[in-house]
Amino acid sequence: MRVIENLDEMIQTARGWLTRGSVGFVPIMNGPSLHAGHRALLSTIREHCEITVVCLLRTPLLFDASSDEPDTTHGPEADPCLLADSDIDVLFMPRHEELFPPDFATPIDIIGPMRDPLLNFNNNPGALREFATIFGLLLLIVRPDITFLGQKDAQQAAIIHKIIHDLHIDVSLHIIPTTREKNGLATSSRNTLLTEVERNAATVLYYSLLQCKQHIEQGEHMALSLAQIVRREIANNPYVELLNLAICDPRSLQPYERVMPGTLFALKARVGSYYFIDNILWMPDGNWRL
Amino acid sequence: MRVIENLDEMIQTARGWLTRGSVGFVPIMNGPSLHAGHRALLSTIREHCEITVVCLLRTPLLFDASSDEPDTTHGPEADPCLLADSDIDVLFMPRHEELFPPDFATPIDIIGPMRDPLLNFNNNPGALREFATIFGLLLLIVRPDITFLGQKDAQQAAIIHKIIHDLHIDVSLHIIPTTREKNGLATSSRNTLLTEVERNAATVLYYSLLQCKQHIEQGEHMALSLAQIVRREIANNPYVELLNLAICDPRSLQPYERVMPGTLFALKARVGSYYFIDNILWMPDGNWRL
Repeated sequence: MRVIENLDEMIQTARGWLTRGSVGFVPIMNGPSLHAGHRALLSTIREHCEITVVCLLRTPLLFDASSDEPDTTHGPEADPCLLADSDIDVLFMPRHEELFPPDFATPIDIIGPMRDPLLNFNNNPGALREFATIFGLLLLIVRPDITFLGQKDAQQAAIIHKIIHDLHIDVSLHIIPTTREKNGLATSSRNTLLTEVERNAATVLYYSLLQCKQHIEQGEHMALSLAQIVRREIANNPYVELLNLAICDPRSLQPYERVMPGTLFALKARVGSYYFIDNILWMPDGNWRL
Repeated sequence: MRVIENLDEMIQTARGWLTRGSVGFVPIMNGPSLHAGHRALLSTIREHCEITVVCLLRTPLLFDASSDEPDTTHGPEADPCLLADSDIDVLFMPRHEELFPPDFATPIDIIGPMRDPLLNFNNNPGALREFATIFGLLLLIVRPDITFLGQKDAQQAAIIHKIIHDLHIDVSLHIIPTTREKNGLATSSRNTLLTEVERNAATVLYYSLLQCKQHIEQGEHMALSLAQIVRREIANNPYVELLNLAICDPRSLQPYERVMPGTLFALKARVGSYYFIDNILWMPDGNWRL
């Protein structure tokens, strides 16, 4: 595994990839410690691509102190050593100051309805812009053929899809299903920060989404009623506070009034001092991605 | 010459260029009729590149009706036929609606001091963003090796340089000196719209910049004094109104208090009902690009 921190070195390396085979890319933002979800991404990348690149990046703005969100920056830091035994060709660790020098002047913004359903961003509009810009930069610097993302962060996937689509960046996107613990809790580095009681309580997130699915299968298709079911389920749990619930198109994040195949059910909640996201997807073919 | 209007066709064509040789690109924004300046660009591109691409694009926002700028949209339209006898491989004429579909959500913005010295943009902040986004899109779609721009629009060149630099787009920029009529007036499709009196009057723009150069050679290096010389020269001419004068770094457009080699002297003025831009550059090597 080669570690690259310097942008120019990464750009030069990426240029050389053209003739060597397909390049798979896994971005890991904000440097969480690696968990089973990341490992699933890393094993998928190797199945599909000859050259594998992982980017570890800590972005101060995304979850900054001015936010009213629970502070998650105290979670365990990303440890590049954890990647050492992975089958990765390049570990790219750009410094934030090099991506954004003081005279940086051309951010990629997010406008329109995608700004609104803020599932996994704090309320700082700069955070969304910084996220979009970082992603655009990484794709233009690393030039992967395929970028691999987890399904868990549905807003991230939607925004990155939009950047790639609208700016005509030549990369395809593979979304990998959410990895879950045995009790259904979506894998997250924050799970280990919860007390045992909280951790049990947090399973209501996935369970409430499954309740939603069950009601759909029983014929309920009104988003308002389905949202009520999720809200009620979570409200019954004193350790969990639902912050946001979106029943929407997975690409545009536009809310639906009536659900149909091709609907995303995504939520964000606070458990203890941390926040968590989860979602399930009713796919266009009628199957569910849980 | 092959004419491409469809984005996907352009993208597919650009992918095929990788192995065929270097690609030179001349963007012609807002569709002016072709003049000697454009012809100079087109002949330069062929000298340097195996594959030549010209983009003609009319962008409604750049000089829109809500602006308080003189309306230049009534100038002669770009005529693709004029290019037919040029030695161009591809004429790319994307439709504005295809570059910006209704759900377009990821504009490239311009922030910081480059917004301020608005030499050639109307005061609509959306215009600068649209310009930056269009340019980013064109570079990502066409994927040229070299982009050729005229020196005359110094702000355009500075912004495009910034987009390429900050977003790490893999293209180099060649700036071609301003083409001038015999009387010194910078070539522009708007020149033909002036009365003879106005056209003579307009020569004061270049003349005032040459006056500035002469005073520098005589030892005047204070930007304030040099600006006074330009202002006074133009104020003497009843047909010309100076709208903006920048004595600045040609890349960052940051104003200088003292001039030195590597200083841009750029102005924007109204002559008759139209506005005009011009500039001269004291190059870092001490020579002048007039």
